[in-house]
Order: sequence, then C-alpha cells, then structure tokens
Amino acid sequence: MNKKFQEEVQQDALGRLISALKILPGIGPKSAQRMAYYLLQHDRAGAQVLGETLQFAVNHIGHCRMCNSFSEIDLCKTCSDDRRDSKILCIVETPSDQLMVEQTLSFKGLYYVLMGRLSPMEGQGPKELGFDVLMNRIFLTPTDGREAVSEVILATNFTSEGEATAHFLGEVLKSKGISISRIARGIPVGGELEYVDAGTLARAMMDRRPLGS
Amino acid sequence: MNKKFQEEVQQDALGRLISALKILPGIGPKSAQRMAYYLLQHDRAGAQVLGETLQFAVNHIGHCRMCNSFSEIDLCKTCSDDRRDSKILCIVETPSDQLMVEQTLSFKGLYYVLMGRLSPMEGQGPKELGFDVLMNRIFLTPTDGREAVSEVILATNFTSEGEATAHFLGEVLKSKGISISRIARGIPVGGELEYVDAGTLARAMMDRRPLGS
Ligand SMILES: [Zn+2]
Ligand SMILES: [Zn+2]
Repeated sequence: MNKKFQEEVQQDALGRLISALKILPGIGPKSAQRMAYYLLQHDRAGAQVLGETLQFAVNHIGHCRMCNSFSEIDLCKTCSDDRRDSKILCIVETPSDQLMVEQTLSFKGLYYVLMGRLSPMEGQGPKELGFDVLMNRIFLTPTDGREAVSEVILATNFTSEGEATAHFLGEVLKSKGISISRIARGIPVGGELEYVDAGTLARAMMDRRPLGS
Repeated sequence: MNKKFQEEVQQDALGRLISALKILPGIGPKSAQRMAYYLLQHDRAGAQVLGETLQFAVNHIGHCRMCNSFSEIDLCKTCSDDRRDSKILCIVETPSDQLMVEQTLSFKGLYYVLMGRLSPMEGQGPKELGFDVLMNRIFLTPTDGREAVSEVILATNFTSEGEATAHFLGEVLKSKGISISRIARGIPVGGELEYVDAGTLARAMMDRRPLGS
C-alpha cells in the first residue's frame, strides 16, 4: 500500500466504526467514540459477537404471519402455543408492549402487534399499519382447527396517537359481533391520589366500579 | 426443523441480539431491547453496516508501533507525518485524550498513548502498561533520520491515578537528560474564582506566574 492510501484506510476503519455506532438510538458522536474505544480496548470478543449477531438478526428476523411481531420463523412461539386461548386477541403497538402485558401473567390469549400506531404526522395511516392484515387475522376462520377471535382487547398506549388508534379500531370493529374492550386507565397500583395527575384521577372517578365487583 | 428446535432458534436470534447489545458501555437490558427493536423495525441497513464495521474493526485495528494508539496500519497517520516535531513527546492516557490535545491545535510534537493509567487496584502496573516499550520509544535513536526525543510532556489526567502515573514516569525519566513537564492545573479559561473548587484555586495560587511571562 502506498502511504496516501494507507492514510485513507486508517482514517476510515475507526471513523467508520464511530459513524456506524451513531445509528443506535440515543447515541451521539461522543458516546459513539467512547463505545468504539471501549470495544477495541476491552472487549473485542464481544464486539465480534455483536457484529455477527447484528448481521444474523437483520438477515433472519422477520415478522410472524399471525401476530406480526418479530420472529425468525413463520409462526412465532406464542402464536404456535396451542394452550393459549385463540378466542381473545390483544392488540398492542410494539413487541415491548407485548412483553409488558405478557409479564403481568394475566393474559392467556393471543396478540397482534401493530408495529406502530396511527400517526398522520408521520404518514402512518391504516394502510401503512396493514390494518387489512389485522382484519383478516380477526375475521378469517383459523385453518388449524382453533377457534376464531370473539374478543378484542385494545391495549395501545394512552398517548393521543395510541388513543386515536384504539378509537379507530373500535369504530371499525364495532357492530361486527365481536366483543371489544380497552384496557383501563386509573390510579396505578400503590399510587397515592396526591401524586396522580388530575386527568388520571378524573378518569379513575369516572371509571369507578361498584365495590365487590 | 421440528417445532421444539424452531422455538429455541426463535428465542435465540432476538434474545442474542439484545444480549450482544448489552456489552456496549452504559447500555442496560432496557436500552438494549429498545435498540434491538429500533434497528429491526427502522434501520436494518444501518444494523447491517454496523455489524460489518464492527467485525472489520475488530479484525483490522491494532496499535501503532510508535505511539501505541489505535491504528489499522503499522505506523499511524500522526506518527508518519514528518512535519511534526519528533523531539517533543506528549504522553496521554487514551486516544480520546490525544484527540482533545490535538484539537487545541497547540501541539505539533508526537504522542504516546498509554491505553490506561497506573492502577494497582485494577492490576495495571508499569509492566501491564508496557512502560518498557515507552522507554524504548523515548531513548532509542530513531532509524528514520528524525531527531530523538528531548522533551516529554506528561498529559495524564488530574485524577489520583493519572497523577500517580505522571509522578512515576517523572521519577523514571528524571536525571536522564530529558526535559520533563506536566500540563498545568489552574482556573479554566473563562472560569470565575467563585465557582472553582478550593483545591483548584489553591493550586492556581501556588502555580502563579510573574506577569508578562
Ligand atoms: Zn406470532
Ligand atoms: Zn502512531
């Protein structure tokens, strides 16, 4: 290699690594530089594994054909678990939200992961979110002998976009003979009225339930 | 693939990606999960590039034989720049520190990067830091016709470990006919006495310089 070319290559390898690390959410130039130095100095084996794993993930992880969540295989582990109740479908925005619901151990039905929420500002409409696929998921009779969906739980976030998404889906699904519910808003478990915002408290008052129900 | 095996593979790909991301400094389980979802959903191309770049970096970036900083080639760009003054050697702890000094545009000599600091607690002694290599760097006459080192600037940090490192190197180098200096402590440029800690102010008083010098 001639010297000029050597110089360019040298500038590139470390510089390219720092640039590449900046694609990670929440990582700016300073953190990316710190990460690059850390990996090269203290964890080359880890960096090697991370490199391989990223490439494998990008090339092998797609979406489950039933729930739309990330999956390396056609039908994910949750959807292929026939101990789960196929009559109840919980609709969430993201795989993280699905995980949160799953960790409550209070839900034994199946999921549909929107991979987003209605957001006109970001150009995310019913079409972009693939609502036609969701409708097929809800209304088509399963071919594997399991029972069709008869109840939908809307578990999108209580942000304005999550609320709009739930409202839209509720409108589309109502009068189709399917039971629809929205997860409850209210005072968090262990929450003190003094520290809850007025909107949440107002909603908790409105949604009050008879004692013993 | 049978179903059991499929399930294990599935658990692995996303789980392995999240685990692999946790090797990054400052990234916990929650951030790693968020990063994995983000990359899979919004930036697969970036993730692919990051994966390739990490592997390339790990396999091609070593250390410059003269300054010990990260380099993809035997002799780094800085060390091979013959416009720099080979008589002055600035010793820093890390490549980031080197970059900070370089960005001041006030130094035109060469560097030596310790890639650490003396830290008995972490098992980092003179041997682990390769002080023998540093001594050769300082005392061996260059074979490329450039002038030998006659002045050393100790630019390790003003932490207790950085100070100990500077002190140790100062002791080793003194009475060897080489000019040794330590970068100055004092009030930061633009600093107000009111907001400087007492130790810094005391040092600034002690290290006061005659006006006009
Ligand atoms: Zn699924
Ligand atoms: Zn060098």
